[in-house]
Amino acid sequence: MRRKTYVDGPRSDIRVPFTEVVLTGDEPPVRLYDTSGPGSDPLVGLPPLRKPWWTGQTQLAAARAGIVTPEMEFVAVREGVTPELVRDEIASGRAVLPANRNHPESEPMIIGSRFLVKVNANIGTSAVTSSVAEEVEKLTWATRWGADTVMDLSTGPRIHETREAIVRNSPVPIGTVPIYQALEKVKGDPLELTWELFRETVIEQAEQGVDYMTIHAGVLLAHVPLAAERVTGIVSRGGSIMAAWCLAEHRENFLYTHFRELCEIFREYDITFSLGDGLRPGSIADANDEAQFAELRTLGELTHIAWEYDVQVMVEGPGHVPMHKIKENVDLQVDLCGGAPFYTLGPLATDIAPAYDHITSAIGAAMIGMFGTAMLCYVTPKEHLGLPNKEDVKAGMIAYKIAAHSADLAKGHAGAQEWDDALSRARFDFRWEDQFELALDPETARAYHDETLPAAPAKTAHFCSMCGPKFCSMRISHELRAAGMKSKSSEFVEAGGRVYLPVAPSA
Amino acid sequence: MRRKTYVDGPRSDIRVPFTEVVLTGDEPPVRLYDTSGPGSDPLVGLPPLRKPWWTGQTQLAAARAGIVTPEMEFVAVREGVTPELVRDEIASGRAVLPANRNHPESEPMIIGSRFLVKVNANIGTSAVTSSVAEEVEKLTWATRWGADTVMDLSTGPRIHETREAIVRNSPVPIGTVPIYQALEKVKGDPLELTWELFRETVIEQAEQGVDYMTIHAGVLLAHVPLAAERVTGIVSRGGSIMAAWCLAEHRENFLYTHFRELCEIFREYDITFSLGDGLRPGSIADANDEAQFAELRTLGELTHIAWEYDVQVMVEGPGHVPMHKIKENVDLQVDLCGGAPFYTLGPLATDIAPAYDHITSAIGAAMIGMFGTAMLCYVTPKEHLGLPNKEDVKAGMIAYKIAAHSADLAKGHAGAQEWDDALSRARFDFRWEDQFELALDPETARAYHDETLPAAPAKTAHFCSMCGPKFCSMRISHELRAAGMKSKSSEFVEAGGRVYLPVAPSA
Repeated sequence: MRRKTYVDGPRSDIRVPFTEVVLTGDEPPVRLYDTSGPGSDPLVGLPPLRKPWWTGQTQLAAARAGIVTPEMEFVAVREGVTPELVRDEIASGRAVLPANRNHPESEPMIIGSRFLVKVNANIGTSAVTSSVAEEVEKLTWATRWGADTVMDLSTGPRIHETREAIVRNSPVPIGTVPIYQALEKVKGDPLELTWELFRETVIEQAEQGVDYMTIHAGVLLAHVPLAAERVTGIVSRGGSIMAAWCLAEHRENFLYTHFRELCEIFREYDITFSLGDGLRPGSIADANDEAQFAELRTLGELTHIAWEYDVQVMVEGPGHVPMHKIKENVDLQVDLCGGAPFYTLGPLATDIAPAYDHITSAIGAAMIGMFGTAMLCYVTPKEHLGLPNKEDVKAGMIAYKIAAHSADLAKGHAGAQEWDDALSRARFDFRWEDQFELALDPETARAYHDETLPAAPAKTAHFCSMCGPKFCSMRISHELRAAGMKSKSSEFVEAGGRVYLPVAPSA
Repeated sequence: MRRKTYVDGPRSDIRVPFTEVVLTGDEPPVRLYDTSGPGSDPLVGLPPLRKPWWTGQTQLAAARAGIVTPEMEFVAVREGVTPELVRDEIASGRAVLPANRNHPESEPMIIGSRFLVKVNANIGTSAVTSSVAEEVEKLTWATRWGADTVMDLSTGPRIHETREAIVRNSPVPIGTVPIYQALEKVKGDPLELTWELFRETVIEQAEQGVDYMTIHAGVLLAHVPLAAERVTGIVSRGGSIMAAWCLAEHRENFLYTHFRELCEIFREYDITFSLGDGLRPGSIADANDEAQFAELRTLGELTHIAWEYDVQVMVEGPGHVPMHKIKENVDLQVDLCGGAPFYTLGPLATDIAPAYDHITSAIGAAMIGMFGTAMLCYVTPKEHLGLPNKEDVKAGMIAYKIAAHSADLAKGHAGAQEWDDALSRARFDFRWEDQFELALDPETARAYHDETLPAAPAKTAHFCSMCGPKFCSMRISHELRAAGMKSKSSEFVEAGGRVYLPVAPSA
């Protein structure tokens, strides 16, 4: 059985949610990280939990001043670490706690290589498809399946309205790419974009409570020709918009030239920068090329500027990268960006499987997570083909929770393996219901088991349909263990100290 | 469009099949490795292609004698390498070419770290479910999706009959685990197993044409107690059967003590050993433990014994292994087993996602493939829950073709990236039909695209539903490229050599 539980923090207004999996027999319950929020009525929105906590300081400013904020206390309980570690990591820039003062509905979370690897889910309307209600439903659905943050990438009409509904109903930080809305305002013509229009759009979104924004300030005029001969050119929408603007105007990217002004706005709301990788590779052929790394050097420069303003920063990464070129991405990003959290899209380990890019990219995501990437942007089966529906959002989330947890295990994250161990013990003990409840997706696990052995007694049977009743290796193992235990008994010693007892397991 | 094509070898009876993807415009066709076979009438079976080629020598004996067999010629064309490389790798034991003389219907293929990473699909009836006709259909289905070998793991009644139907209809090598049938013969009681009964079973299967057999000869009496305190004990069926026998009889595993007799039988048919990892870990907690590695040392010893008899060998590996412990498995196997091909089941990178273990294990499989594993045994979504149906077989195959190809890319396998590049060029050029045809699963890619943009004109549109017509980054990139090309023209020089032209891309 699963139930929601809360762990009290050091203050009465800090109650940290967990999913508690109650197991059978003597097994202790297992507590899982829970992103689903308290549930909301879409017409009302969520309660403004963090409203009383705003002091006018960004989390980074507070951390640098030695202050542990209520948000940091919350996160410490959530991650099972000390508040001091949380404060330290934020102060050094190695972690961010995205929390716009105008999004008090969010439950604090942290993104950094010392913490659990996080997953972002992209949703959003486009000119071609989707409604506001559908997007709010996708938001709720995504957080139910473990989305740690959600990006609203709406590009069609009703951008403002969609975002308002999403922010008011979101228990997780919301990210956006403001250039999309700015471009809508000029009817899609990049040449009409101006710094003033962009600034106004950022403030509009900041007021609504957007927690982090992707800013493609690293696409410099000098970088654009580096992408001209690529197999897939520029695949980032924001990147291509800024590249078009730079080339047409023959001027430097206004996001770069006005970056310090952006920092001032971001500081006012405690918005976190997500420095966009507008020149990320869009194919295996283009991975780790000069266009990509030239932009990364600029992102490193911008990271340090943002830190001057006490503004939190994470840095976006690729994209499409074959496995043997993944580690170089992380090493370079850590070096150039002073350890600011890396936030990558996949990467896809091959280009050959459209319709399965949640899998091609889960491979790359798990690896880049192991190497230190702090947050993974999910990829759904519809990537390259269309907009994700609810089932695609779920498929993307499941694949990415697998990648993130695999990375947590590989990094030796304290406590991560308890979940695996609890499930494996349930498997070994034939506690089928416990296995299902501990599974990332209990419903599907149960449904698959039912397909071949639907009767209720099979849920307590000491075998399954794979081997049938006679051949079960797990059952034989139990008998071996019983024999093994006996070998430690006095009988064993009296028998002359032989290591193996001639005990016949029943067949 | 996809069509089957054949490339002629140096002899008139060598015609190597490929899938040719015919592209639009000036793009050259792309040739893909093809495992689907010539197609057969289940009542008749396939033509006995290799029948005239048998000379009484194993492929290993021939290779060591400097002989390039027709099978090696076939494989060289199939892999795009020289026959001499094929012969060399077989002679050294670093590759195997499984080809029982009684399975002349198979199209030669090679398994070794210098060649394309291969994928095996497990099928088979159990006591609880499945029919013979269904299993033949699964075989055909698996090879259609790229299975390089198929293991028939039937455990219920009709084992002999199922296997006969499978071998006669299989264009790929067939593997089995003979201990399953031996145990059926003694009504499931491991204590009734004898060497004589096992030997008779092996010969029965050898006569039918099984190309490789899993032999759990590394589960020694002394190893069994090492598994007693594991979280999931012994999870290999064959391993648990032999462990039960050893403990009950308090004698050494008869597969180990009679191993040289097995080598003599295998040599007579040119059956390849697949040395079973009966003590592979069944959970993250048990990975890389002493039980596993003690068995691997024994498998190394047995590998060298088989080679004395000119018998080909591959070595099976785990299982469940967290990412950071994967490389050690390959390094140790290569060292202990003299470079004999490694053949692993996944490994699963986490235990928490039953119903999605094709994904948890594709992560581990891609990585272990990159490190040098020659063949990956697929895992389907039903792993740990039930027997795979046709859809599960397909899901497992797709996930594993992704893992294998990702590994080929990471190893820098000559020609592997051509497939990715062709697909990425099609993507950049908005050649939607070419993208679908080049996809690992064209039908699903097309269906997903149709979901949001079903009209035929959308198949030639220079945008998709993700960004809609106004924001397409690919289209903007084309305009940038056009601008870039212009910058190389004389106009550019006359304009004073500025790097960037003030050319306005249309919006």
